[in-house]
Order: sequence, then C-alpha cells, then structure tokens
Amino acid sequence: MRDNQLNSLIQQMTLEEKIAQLIQLATPFYQGSNYNGQITGPIVELGITEEIVHNSGSVLGASGAEEVISIQKTHLENNRLGIPLLFMADVVHGFKTIFPVPLAIGCSWDLGLAEKSAEIAAREAAVSGVHVTFAPMVDLVRDPRWGRVMESTGEDPYLNSQFAKAFVRGFQGSDLETDKNRVAACVKHFAAYGAPEGGRDYNTVNMSERQLRESYLPAYKAALDAGVEMVMTAFNTVDGIPASANKWLMRDLLRDEWKFDGVLISDWGAVKELIPHGVAADETEAAYKAIQAGVDIEMMTACYVKHLRELVENGDIHETTIDEAVLRILRLKAKLGLFEHPYRAADESLEKEIVMSHQHRQASRELAAKSCVLLKNDGVLPLQKDRKIAVIGPFAQSGDILGPWSWLGSKEQAVQLYDGLTEKAGSSLLLTAKGCGIDTGTEEQLNEAFDIASQADIIVLALGEDSEMSGEAGSRADIRLPEVQIELVKKLKQLHKPTVAVLFNGRPLDLHGVIDHVDAVLEAWYPGTEGGAAIADLLFGDVNPSGKLTMSFPFSVGQVPVYYNHFNTGRPKDAPDAQERYVSQYLDIPNQPLLPFGFGLSYTTYSYSEAKLSGDSINLEQSLSLTIKVTNTGKMAGEEIVQLYIQDLAGEVVRPLKELKAFEKIMLQPGESKKVTFTITEEQLRYYHSDLQFKSDPGAFNAYVGPNSQQGQALPFQLVK
Amino acid sequence: MRDNQLNSLIQQMTLEEKIAQLIQLATPFYQGSNYNGQITGPIVELGITEEIVHNSGSVLGASGAEEVISIQKTHLENNRLGIPLLFMADVVHGFKTIFPVPLAIGCSWDLGLAEKSAEIAAREAAVSGVHVTFAPMVDLVRDPRWGRVMESTGEDPYLNSQFAKAFVRGFQGSDLETDKNRVAACVKHFAAYGAPEGGRDYNTVNMSERQLRESYLPAYKAALDAGVEMVMTAFNTVDGIPASANKWLMRDLLRDEWKFDGVLISDWGAVKELIPHGVAADETEAAYKAIQAGVDIEMMTACYVKHLRELVENGDIHETTIDEAVLRILRLKAKLGLFEHPYRAADESLEKEIVMSHQHRQASRELAAKSCVLLKNDGVLPLQKDRKIAVIGPFAQSGDILGPWSWLGSKEQAVQLYDGLTEKAGSSLLLTAKGCGIDTGTEEQLNEAFDIASQADIIVLALGEDSEMSGEAGSRADIRLPEVQIELVKKLKQLHKPTVAVLFNGRPLDLHGVIDHVDAVLEAWYPGTEGGAAIADLLFGDVNPSGKLTMSFPFSVGQVPVYYNHFNTGRPKDAPDAQERYVSQYLDIPNQPLLPFGFGLSYTTYSYSEAKLSGDSINLEQSLSLTIKVTNTGKMAGEEIVQLYIQDLAGEVVRPLKELKAFEKIMLQPGESKKVTFTITEEQLRYYHSDLQFKSDPGAFNAYVGPNSQQGQALPFQLVK
Repeated sequence: MRDNQLNSLIQQMTLEEKIAQLIQLATPFYQGSNYNGQITGPIVELGITEEIVHNSGSVLGASGAEEVISIQKTHLENNRLGIPLLFMADVVHGFKTIFPVPLAIGCSWDLGLAEKSAEIAAREAAVSGVHVTFAPMVDLVRDPRWGRVMESTGEDPYLNSQFAKAFVRGFQGSDLETDKNRVAACVKHFAAYGAPEGGRDYNTVNMSERQLRESYLPAYKAALDAGVEMVMTAFNTVDGIPASANKWLMRDLLRDEWKFDGVLISDWGAVKELIPHGVAADETEAAYKAIQAGVDIEMMTACYVKHLRELVENGDIHETTIDEAVLRILRLKAKLGLFEHPYRAADESLEKEIVMSHQHRQASRELAAKSCVLLKNDGVLPLQKDRKIAVIGPFAQSGDILGPWSWLGSKEQAVQLYDGLTEKAGSSLLLTAKGCGIDTGTEEQLNEAFDIASQADIIVLALGEDSEMSGEAGSRADIRLPEVQIELVKKLKQLHKPTVAVLFNGRPLDLHGVIDHVDAVLEAWYPGTEGGAAIADLLFGDVNPSGKLTMSFPFSVGQVPVYYNHFNTGRPKDAPDAQERYVSQYLDIPNQPLLPFGFGLSYTTYSYSEAKLSGDSINLEQSLSLTIKVTNTGKMAGEEIVQLYIQDLAGEVVRPLKELKAFEKIMLQPGESKKVTFTITEEQLRYYHSDLQFKSDPGAFNAYVGPNSQQGQALPFQLVK
Repeated sequence: MRDNQLNSLIQQMTLEEKIAQLIQLATPFYQGSNYNGQITGPIVELGITEEIVHNSGSVLGASGAEEVISIQKTHLENNRLGIPLLFMADVVHGFKTIFPVPLAIGCSWDLGLAEKSAEIAAREAAVSGVHVTFAPMVDLVRDPRWGRVMESTGEDPYLNSQFAKAFVRGFQGSDLETDKNRVAACVKHFAAYGAPEGGRDYNTVNMSERQLRESYLPAYKAALDAGVEMVMTAFNTVDGIPASANKWLMRDLLRDEWKFDGVLISDWGAVKELIPHGVAADETEAAYKAIQAGVDIEMMTACYVKHLRELVENGDIHETTIDEAVLRILRLKAKLGLFEHPYRAADESLEKEIVMSHQHRQASRELAAKSCVLLKNDGVLPLQKDRKIAVIGPFAQSGDILGPWSWLGSKEQAVQLYDGLTEKAGSSLLLTAKGCGIDTGTEEQLNEAFDIASQADIIVLALGEDSEMSGEAGSRADIRLPEVQIELVKKLKQLHKPTVAVLFNGRPLDLHGVIDHVDAVLEAWYPGTEGGAAIADLLFGDVNPSGKLTMSFPFSVGQVPVYYNHFNTGRPKDAPDAQERYVSQYLDIPNQPLLPFGFGLSYTTYSYSEAKLSGDSINLEQSLSLTIKVTNTGKMAGEEIVQLYIQDLAGEVVRPLKELKAFEKIMLQPGESKKVTFTITEEQLRYYHSDLQFKSDPGAFNAYVGPNSQQGQALPFQLVK
C-alpha cells in the first residue's frame, strides 16, 4: 500500500483506533497466544480494555509461527479495519541458533560473518513469524561495570559503525518487501545508553553535545545510513532529559537533521518511567512529553491509550501528530507486506526445517571461533590430542554459554566445553571436575578438582560469570571473577602443571589472580550454541585464534573508564620531560589497561615492515596511500587484523591519541607476506569542533599501522588546505 | 593609584615591559631571594633573560618577610618604572599555623571558623610578605580517587558556595586597601577541575554546559560574588578545550556574563601545556590561545614573554589586549597599595610574634575538633582517663598530619596523637607501638603491637594515608587503607578489646576491613598543627564530636561516583512497584554509599520533632517557614547540624532526589530543645533548564529536615505562579 492508501485508511480510523496503534503489548495479552489473552490481571493493571488490545498495533515476544499465526488470525477477526499486527522480538545474537554475544562478534572484526549471523537470525525469526527485531544495539561502551557491554561491539565509534551497518544489512537484506526471509531492524538505544554513570544500568548519562556527536552518535547514524527501519529510545537521560521525552534528540536531531522517517519506539515501559525520572508529574504529562518528542510506539505502558485522547481534545496536541505516528507504523506494515500477507514468512513446517539447522550451527561455530581472543599463551597452546587433559571449573560442563538476550536459545542444545573437547580428542584422555560453582564452592569440590587435575598432563580451567551477571540490569561493582574461582586457580597452581584458562563472561574483567597464575588465557565470552565445539577448534589448533579485543580490559575497577582513544592531557605520564609526580597518573596502578583495544594473540607470529606513506601531505582532493608488508613469521596459517590509526597532533579541541580509521583482515600462510594498502583521505580527519561543525583542520598528523592500538610506528603527514 | 594614572604608566611602558608583567616566576629566579637569582639553569631552560625577570610582574612562593623585602628591594632597583612585584603563595589551609585540610573544614559546617582560619592564614601570610594566596579551591568533587578532594569542601554546590564566600571574606576582609593584614584571594580552578575522568589528576573533564552551570560553577560564582580578586584556570579541558585556552569559559562566561574584571592567572605551566593537550602546535599558538582566552598571567612558562611580541607585530593580537591584562595586574597592585608600600605588611619582627602564635594554634585546635567526624561509636567513646590505652599504628607518633598544601607548615611542630593524649591523660597509662608503616610492615612490628595492645584496656588505632597519597597528582585507584594496615586491624581484633580507629587521610575511603572490625571510628582527616590535641579533646569527651561528612564514603571504589544529590532514574531500586532485577542497581553492592553526605555521630543524641510548614504553597512573593524542634536527648551538651533539603518532584529536566538548601548549627545542653526555622523561597527552587534559563517551575516539592541527607520526613508543598 502506498501512502495515499494508508492515509485514507487513517481517515477511516477513529481517534481511539489510531491511538491504539501506538501501543505495543507482550503476547500474553492476546487471544490466540499461548496464554490466550487470559492474563486479565496485567490488562487491568495497565488500565486498558480488550477493545484496546483488539485495536493495538504491535506485539512483542511471540515465540514461533504457530503462535504468531494464531494471534494474527484472531486479531484480524476482531479488528474493525483489518489492520494486521506487527510482531517484534528480541533477536539480538541469533534466534534459536545462538551466535556469540555482540561484544564477542565485535572481537572477530569480521563484518561479513557478522552480517551473516544477522541474516541467519533473521531467517529463523522470519519463518517463526517475527517481523521486526529489537537489534542491533550499537551503544558505545567504556565502562565494564555496565552489564550490557556484552550487547555492544565495543568502545570504538568507527568499528561500532561498521558493525551497525553489517547487522542492519544482515537483518534487513536489500529489499524487505520482496525478501520475506528478512526482518526489519530496530537500532537501539537512542542515545548514549552505554554511558551510565558508575556503570549502573539505567543511570544518568551526561556529556556535552560535542562529545555525544563525536563518539556516541556515529553508530546510530551508521545504522540509519544502512536503512534501519526503526529506532528505539534509551532508558537514560541525555543532558537531563530522558531520551523518551527528549525533543531535541528525537525531533531536532533524529527526524529533522538526520531525516529519519521510520518508526520510533520507546524501550520497555520507558514512557511511564518519565514519572520516576521526575520530568512528568503523571501519565498524562508522560504521554504528552513522549508524543511531542516523537515517540511513535509506547512499549508496555498505557500512557498513550489512556491519555492521548484528552490531550487531543484539550488541544494540547494536534491530531495530526498522532496521524503521523500512525502513518509511520502503517507504512512499515505495508513495507513488510502485512496487509496482503499478514503472516509474512511464518511457516510452521519451514520453521522446523530451518531453525537450528546444521548449516546455521556451523555458521555459529565459525563465528564463535573467530570471536574468541587469545589473551596469553606461554607456549602451552595449542593442545596436543595425546595428552591427558583435566577440564575443571563451573563452565567445564555448562550450557550457560549463550549469554544474555538469547531467550529462545536452548542451553540444553548448546555444546558444552567438555563435549566439544571430547568430540575432538575422545573421552579416554579427558577428565573433568566442577571445582566450584560460579560464586559458591565447597572444600570437597575443590579437593576433587585438585585430585582430578593431578592426574592430568594439562589443566583447562573453564571459568567465568554466569549469564545473569551481565546483560540488562546486570551491573557489577567488582569486575573480578568471583573469589571462589580465584581460589580454584590458586589451588590448582600448586600442581605446577601447564594450565589454560578459558573464560566465559560478558564484560572485560580485571584478570588479576587468573592471567598471572596460568600459562594461557582464551577469552571465549559467551560463544553461543556451538561454543564448546568452537573452543575445541581453537584449543587443539584446528582453527588459529584471530580475535582481537574491541573493549579494553582494565587493570582494576579503580581505573575505569579506560579506553584507547583517550586524550593526552596537559601532563602526560610518558612525555620525555615528564616530572616524576606531577603527571596524570595513579599512584598505585599504571595508566594503561591490562589489555588494550585491538589486542589478541595467535598461534603464529606476524611481522610488520616497510610501512610507507605515498607522500607527506594530503589535501581536500588528494589522498595518501599507506602500505605495509605483513609477514607470517610462524609455523601456522593465520588471520591477522591489520589496524590503521590516525592521530591529529593539534586540533581546535583536544583530539584522541589514536583513532581507528580502517582495518583489514588477511589470511597468511606460514612464511607468506602480503602488502596491505590503506587510503587516507581528508574525510577521515574530520571531527566536531566547539561550534559543532564537522570538519578537518590543516596541520600535522600521525598514522600508525599495527597489530593493536598500542603498537605501530608513527608515520607523519600533513593536511594542507 | 587610579585607572587613569595606571593607564599613563602603561603608556610609558615598552611592549617588552608590558609583556613581562604577564609572567609569574618562582622566587629562585630573583636576585635577593634565598637563591639570589643564581639558578641560571631554569632561566636558560625557560629561554628568558635577566631583563625579563627584572620586568616581570609577579612572584610565587616566597617564604617570609626577609626574602620578600629583599627581592622587592632589588627588583625596584632594577625595574625602570619602579613597578613593584606582586607576591603570591599557596596559603591554602593555613600559612605556618596549619588548619585542617579544606575537606575537613567542610565537615565542620562552620562558616565562621572557616572564615577565621582564612583570616589567621592571611594575617600570618601578610606579615610574611604575601600579597595574594592561591586559594580558595572550590572545585566540586564526587570521585574520591582524585587526590585533590582533600582541597575542596566537598560534593555539594550550595555548601561549597558558602565556604567559598567564607574563605574569601577571611582572606580578603572587607577592604584590602586599608587592611594590610589581609591578602587577596584567588579562586581556583576555573572550571570543573574536580571532575577528572577516572579520578586521575589532570584528566579530561566532559559534561554538558547545563550540568556545569547547575553543579560545578556555583562555588566559583559565589567566590566572585564575595569579591575575590583573582581567578586561576584549571589544568583540565572543559568540553574539549583546556581551560587556559577556553575563550567561551574565560571571555564569554567569566568576563562578559559574570563581569569579572580582576586578574586571571594560569595554573602552573598550564599555558605551555596547551601543546601536550594538543590544541596548540607550538609555544606561539599556546600564547595566542591563552591571551585570546583572557589569561592575564602565565605561571612558570614563557610562551607570553617569548612570543606575544611577534603576535602583536604580526597583527594576530591587538596591543590593547595586552594593555588590558597589564592594567588588571597593575590595578591589583594599586589596590594592595604596593606602589606606595611595596612591602605592604611584610615585617620580620611582627612575623616572629604573630606566626604560629598560641592564639592561632588554639583556633586551629578548635576548628580541628569541629572538623573530625565520628563515623561509628558502639559505646566505647569517649575514653575514660583512668584506663590503660594502647595507641597503635603508623599515625600514633607521626607529625604527617598537616596534609598536602602545607608547604610552610612544620611537621615537627605538629601535635602528634600520642602527645595529645599524653597531655590529657599523662603518660603512665599510655602505651604505644607503630604496628606497621603506611604501606609496609614487618612481622616484628606486628607482634610488638600485639604485645603492647594486649597490655591495655583499650586500643586506639591511628591509621591512614600519608600526605603524599592525596593532594595534587595523588590519585589512587584503590581507595582502601593499605593492606598492611588492614592486617594490623585484623591482628589486633584477635584481642577482643574495645578498639577505636582514628583515621588520617585525604579522601573518603572504602572502610571495609576497618569500620566492621572496630568499635568506634573517628575520621580525623589531616587535622593540622594541633591535630593530636584536638583529637584528644574529642576522644576524652572534652569536646563533643559534631562534624558531618560533606563527601560520601563509597561502599567500594566500584561504586564511584556516588553522591547524595543524584537523580532517581526511571527505574529506582527502592520504588514500591520496583521489580527485583530490572532496576538501577549493582548486583553485588548496594546503591547507597557506606556513609552518606551530612552524616556524623555525637556523644549525645538528638531527636527531631514537630516538623511543620507554615503553609502548603509558596509563590513568587510569598515564602514558607519550616520549623522543627530539635532536642538533645542524651547526657552531654553538643552541637547539631540541622540540614534542610528540597526535592523538586517533576522538572523540565531531571532534578536531584534532594538538594541541600540551608543548614543551622545549634548548641544544645542535655535535655534542651530548640526550634529551628528555615525560610523556603522561590529562589531556592530555581535550576537550569534545557535552554540554560535559571528559573523555577510551578509544581510539587518536598522539604526534608534532618540530621543528614538520608533521614528526615517529607513535607510536601506547592510552588504556585
């Protein structure tokens, strides 16, 4: 349907019918759902009627084709004008085939596989009846205390932007209308949800507009540039005004400046939360502020359906404001073909065939192996298959490796580490013991683990956080592994055997007490459905680790926030003329993180040589080429992620010490060399000035190419105008 | 001299002479100083000539009347136009009679004694030849990792503003021109130096202009309102531009909007630091940016004297810009009477009589006793004089109790804790042992302490940070006491004797491992010259503790920043309908600090009753009275700090849960009651809106009166317009 048809449909709608399009409810509210609309309790609590449910516009959280078809069918019978429901769901890193958590995917630096993971998730979701996914989450993150860092690809605006685009492409494909295997994407959480004070979820965010534009907004903008259909508001405030009531953010920036014309949805309950936030005295004011700010859909609270009518009747808001919101929602339904095909791709038999297919699981396994990051290896990895291995720890035999936001994923169907290793090496040489729980343990468990480990040649410790320890509302003030696991490490250290730690967790951790006591550390994050298999691929060297960190691992929690693209300060610690005391430093720990952005080891080694710029200056028309030779100097084929950083030596405002501007992932056979070429353009040198103009300044710059954010020789050049 | 005379003096000055007025050098550069200008090394390093020194405008760090008179005398002989030098010094919390550190003074909530401490410091400094002090520091602080929190009065804009005014009044008196016992004050560090990222000194500061105005700027403005003569720039960036190059901050805000017409000085080296900051390519650009931003005096670097001339000659800056800076400096010299009396109050014999006088030391003792905060007391305090007391710990016999920024203070002349206690109780019942050093210790020390403690009835542990562990460049990532001291506490706990911890430190600490293992804790901060005497006054009950915290003590470093006047968020943890998980919280620690703002115990108890508002609404003309009865329900006379907080329930932007609006300190005899009355006016309800307008909105408010920021019943009222 075209806009004129949709507009005439809107003209037929009563004000109540229009307003009801703007509410989004969970499936249990609906007849035909697995709960069959029986939960009158919540309906009463929300203060809404069955009539409103019949006229409502969208649903969240349906769990499969059968339920979706059933709800939609009943809905269309009850809906006067036959307007289909839009089905949305949290398909964040996989639908049922769970991929690694996004922070892990970030560490793959593999945009192709990231896109493919979203495509597979979309395919599984689509045949299961989902029309729109609440993803990608592209919030920039710098504070590992925050539980949702696992949902982001990391601390870099450029890299996050690349992943934002890849995910949107993967979910949406190139034509949502014709490609029914895709789902619409909804970028979130607009804006700057990733910067909560103290790393405490939902907490205050405050920064200057310039910093917001420079660091936090680019990834959302990238998703829009990739054509994302929806945007979700954030729970936090943006300069004192909650995102869901933030007219500047939504109307001025998102709609007027960025020309976003899609649907804007609140996060769960965020409209009514304007009351506890203290910017709305009651539900009426909350509804007023949210609709004025441009929120089209109110998720899971009823301020709109209960109060928009009086606001229109009082003349506080124009009915056209509501019409516009309705039009955007109907337009998305039309684009998805729901008026003609209200079930879209929902198909129970296809669902059975496609979801969790072998092919999908293989893709998850491949991405998981590329997402793990080898943090330390004193020669103990890869493991030899003829040695006796003791797999010890709470994650030795745990299916809790899918991570948060994998609500339809099955822990039972996840490949546990022990099983993954058995698959490769057989069970005869594998021993296992739990050692302790996640944060509790007994002397008996510890002793059993000690005994088992003492019988092995090599110890593989499977440690980490359970998935409840990160994710939404999963903030931790202490970012070490729980004490009991540190004790387990200490205990087994007494055996003086080669020890490898495999870590399952949702945030950068303070690894003191682990990394300093073992010979190798593999950061596996939450690797998804095929986790154990992928880790076995890596531990036995069938796949060479290639992942690199996209979020710094702090030295300790007292160092946060710590991120590679920080500023120099006026008294940098490492300056040649620096005083001993009067420099920007901590007295008790280094300024550098324990492990920096871009860092990751391999079973082979690479050398970087012959770095060269094609000239010493660029201008508005003329770019520069930077070439470097990368050689695999080890004995195993491997993929290396070659990173280009640029530093602006003197700006109108202070500029980061380094900023990632490009990267390339190359496969090198042992002894093989490849020349990597990057193009440096004036566009890469632009930044937000104090007057919020985005532009470059003439002057001196350094380019750095290297294997991570800390290594790489400076190649100076000038921008001339 | 009047402006017209000063202007004609400026007309006689060469450009070089004018520019030289703008540099400030340390005393060793000067002939007549104790170094007698011999250190040609630094002069050469700075790239300046003796001529420039002869023409320079101001000096920092002279140490007494003799040196000042000698330098000034020689200077006037060498200076063509006879322009006297201005002598400045860091007289922060006392000159030689050292008062408690400002954070401690804050905890006294005693504006009268704070003013008196500044008056005494000014008197001692003035007779010693100082004309201007680099104080008060009024930076708002929320992160105890930062070492300079000890130099601020705390986390509250209102309280800091009151102290800012009190200090300025104390230093400057009512008429600097006639009252030679006063010195000009220099408020610092403009602006927001107290908010460095990660609590790392000199690090990046970023926040919105609205937050800057709402929380961080009020105390500087209060100092200006009190007539402060000078302002010092901060080392940090303010929204990407270092303060010392920040034209918006200095020209637009400080000079144009706030009409500040006094002298603006850079912090030490801050002009040249524009280069490492990365906003100036070289010294010329640094000089250009600083003078354009309005910095009159460049402290300790030579960008101005080396490059302003060429900038004037090239037409990059107008000579009038330099003339204006010179005029402001000469005007201050004239106001201080230096043209007529170049030594001002410098007087060697008076210096001997006044400095460290008994009266001054008594004032310091009084303020120190009021600055200590009793954090815990399970009945063990006050101590009885007939019991055997073991004073154990690195601060038992230490003079390192003056704190940072007490450069002329004498640790040798400071009253140590052991001596203060001896003075009261005699030495026969007092035992002492070191137990350990600040952060190192031996088994022998520990055992000795254990033995000594086992002989006593009561243990007084004297623990803390040495003064190098806070102050400038004294940031710590771990804010617990050093491990060895925690071990000492644990060890002595085995004796099961009544134990009191007295803490000497410069920041709020994570007190786990101390407060949970002892019976009483007295936070003594760095109490100054009379520290041991003042603490003895408190421990033996000759003075009843009355101090209350002005900076929250975090539960752990993973909780920072934590401060009482935070926002509610959309998902507050303690809401009646709050979910178990999906609220703003940490999984592992509470949201509340270990000890909140406004908290402090006494040896008596107070009850609050009959809280009443005179009406239920106010308007622009009509204020409200809030009365409350406070009763001393214990057995000892005491001073109680009664605090008024207000909450705005729904604002245009989110508003703090509580904001301190007034307080009163009252003395109550046992059994005595007093009625305290506060006036609530519309003015107190104003705040910065998103459009930066400072105004109030009609609506609902709560007033709270109580003994700290957490206790007090809500008294609702309305603002009607």
